[in-house]
Amino acid sequence: MDADRRITISVQQTEDEGDVGAGDRNRRGWKAVYMDHNATTPMHPEVIRVMTEAMSRYWRNPSSDYAPEVREAISSARKQVADMVSCSPEEIIFVSSGTEANNWILESVLAATTANSPSDKSHVITSDIEHVAVGLKLEELERRGCCEVDRVSAADHGRVRASDVIKRVRPGTRLISIMLANNETGCIQPVDEIARQLRPINSKRKECNLPVVLVHTDSAQAVGKMPVSTEELGVDFLTIVGHKFYGPRSAAVFCNRENLKLLKERRMFQGGGQERSLRPGTENTVDIIGLGMAAETVRCFLRSWCENIRVTGAYFVTRLNETFGESAVLSFVGMQNDILPNTFSISFRDHRLKGPTVLKNCNVIQASTGAACHTGLCSASSALMNSGLTEEAALNTIRLSVGKDTTTKDIDVAIADLTQAVQKITSETVQ
Amino acid sequence: MDADRRITISVQQTEDEGDVGAGDRNRRGWKAVYMDHNATTPMHPEVIRVMTEAMSRYWRNPSSDYAPEVREAISSARKQVADMVSCSPEEIIFVSSGTEANNWILESVLAATTANSPSDKSHVITSDIEHVAVGLKLEELERRGCCEVDRVSAADHGRVRASDVIKRVRPGTRLISIMLANNETGCIQPVDEIARQLRPINSKRKECNLPVVLVHTDSAQAVGKMPVSTEELGVDFLTIVGHKFYGPRSAAVFCNRENLKLLKERRMFQGGGQERSLRPGTENTVDIIGLGMAAETVRCFLRSWCENIRVTGAYFVTRLNETFGESAVLSFVGMQNDILPNTFSISFRDHRLKGPTVLKNCNVIQASTGAACHTGLCSASSALMNSGLTEEAALNTIRLSVGKDTTTKDIDVAIADLTQAVQKITSETVQ
Repeated sequence: MDADRRITISVQQTEDEGDVGAGDRNRRGWKAVYMDHNATTPMHPEVIRVMTEAMSRYWRNPSSDYAPEVREAISSARKQVADMVSCSPEEIIFVSSGTEANNWILESVLAATTANSPSDKSHVITSDIEHVAVGLKLEELERRGCCEVDRVSAADHGRVRASDVIKRVRPGTRLISIMLANNETGCIQPVDEIARQLRPINSKRKECNLPVVLVHTDSAQAVGKMPVSTEELGVDFLTIVGHKFYGPRSAAVFCNRENLKLLKERRMFQGGGQERSLRPGTENTVDIIGLGMAAETVRCFLRSWCENIRVTGAYFVTRLNETFGESAVLSFVGMQNDILPNTFSISFRDHRLKGPTVLKNCNVIQASTGAACHTGLCSASSALMNSGLTEEAALNTIRLSVGKDTTTKDIDVAIADLTQAVQKITSETVQ
Repeated sequence: MDADRRITISVQQTEDEGDVGAGDRNRRGWKAVYMDHNATTPMHPEVIRVMTEAMSRYWRNPSSDYAPEVREAISSARKQVADMVSCSPEEIIFVSSGTEANNWILESVLAATTANSPSDKSHVITSDIEHVAVGLKLEELERRGCCEVDRVSAADHGRVRASDVIKRVRPGTRLISIMLANNETGCIQPVDEIARQLRPINSKRKECNLPVVLVHTDSAQAVGKMPVSTEELGVDFLTIVGHKFYGPRSAAVFCNRENLKLLKERRMFQGGGQERSLRPGTENTVDIIGLGMAAETVRCFLRSWCENIRVTGAYFVTRLNETFGESAVLSFVGMQNDILPNTFSISFRDHRLKGPTVLKNCNVIQASTGAACHTGLCSASSALMNSGLTEEAALNTIRLSVGKDTTTKDIDVAIADLTQAVQKITSETVQ
């Protein structure tokens, strides 16, 4: 098959080219070690190849009668994405970003499920560690009087409890929106368990002819780092974000076929009839084809990527412990249960070793901190604090997320880099 | 300069590679003659080059501290787009499509300018030949009670009259949204004249401390086919669509800097702080860089493209007249004033020669018809009928839009193809 041939090429390319994208030099001339795969991922060489080909081959307007090959390429990509998350191609809607997907799902579902009487507000259950595209959208919907929102705490080691979610379900509850894995801590949320515990509640609702409680999960951080199956999760809506799994900056929404009509209630845009009249605008064929290939590589290689990540991660933890011992705290560690295997949160006990200061003194590590700094002032990440860290621990945190191509050699370089940064800061400043 | 060097390469590539994208073979094995540049355009080789480079070079998250080179690439693209339409880079907002741009501008401006009292509805003036992303969006806003809409007729040879627009301005008028050039007829609308006639009205409004009437134009079809300068047009909001000028499927909104705050009133999405908190979502860097390069090629080559299009177009009209004489009607012809030079509407007087039938019998021409056919039934384009054509003429219409790389040789092939199609249909069917 053509697809198999392409995948074979891809493996060879990956082996030949090694650290494509992840190993280029940074501004200081050092060869960078990229450890921020939760922010974004380098594009897979096969994704680059199909997108480059698509630019000169599949540029015609898919709506044109004479362009069946473009429509076929889109169908094929739709199937690739559907196969990755175990759903049917008809359930995939291509949109432009995870933000669009999350915003649209929340807005539409609430518009579609609000009871006729304006006093009967829809009720939504979410967590206090959601991505802003869910968190701020729900705040806006609340402000506009479209719903009431309950935010379940994730302070129990960065995770919400399924029982905490379920016990908040009330007659007006229409939607539960809980992310599958948090981008900062890597903590995996019990979305499958929530859906399971919801089933008897929804059965009773159906018997009484009442609207069921729907479940949405933003799986942006999970796809490509753990198996994601809509069937196994039992969710109604799923957000997928291409650039988090070695694909392009575009996203797909999954939804159960029976719930497609809910998304029509408040479409994001009015315009042409593309994407079954759900999402108008000439299809971004090049990105769609790239997203399809990214999904296919996940489907084919996820197991081996995860194995590599586990080996690299175990080596990383060993080296961190050896090198820094008690002076460093590993607050969320990918080797633990229910944490994405690629994500590590590290902080130093020494108050001089704040996350931003350490990273600023690193020569090669590219990573994120648990703080946002503007005009010299740093504020701690609310997601980290809501996950149980103190403000000081959050401020000190460095978040390192490795990828499928990160090697133990990269880890050695990163450890050496951290060591020199720590030594430099502590030797320059008085305790 | 680096930009100049790239452009030199681009010209050589174009000359070497000739008809990249426009000359590949269609399903029947014939070398296609692409004459549907108003539907979409083949991507410029330079755009493909910079996007391919961007995929492996500028994939890092632009929000990451360690990725200044990605932020610089985006800034550079923003400047390229701004330069193309004579505005400042701060006035460019990157969005995902023309549909998103049009929808957002209309929704936000009306949300921002609606008077406090709900009974004082905003009034909008538009035309009856707008793209559905404007037409349907305004219908939705009307349905939701957000505004009242006046649709000015374009039946006068496909054009609205500036005076017809201005005389409908009333105290509640907040917005005029008229496209710059129509995709089907190519007719250029008097947007500059409307803005000029509006100036004294707005001056008086300002004196009385009343809100001014804002002007939006969807310039999707115009950019790359005629000079488009926001300064000369005098508009407040402009929609640009990359894939209509040899760029990627992404778009930019222009707006006057003083009116940026209006777009905040009803942002399309809630989420991160990207695009000055106006359009959240990790920036689609690859498409943005491609859009920048497409804009740069327009800025550098528009004059020579237009010259080529005029030569090709004049040859096309001559050959059409020579070949079909009185049996064909050229209803909108790019050689006339105020019609995009690349757009030609042709119909045959013979009732058997309906647009869809003729095109179905063509072997090489890829073009559009003035009818949408579903399940065997064809309905005439309302834009053509609103532009003054009868239903029969609209049904018979073939819309041919040439591009910068269309040659007189392509025209010869197209004429021969039309001739054989016409002969085939007329010899097979009885008058």
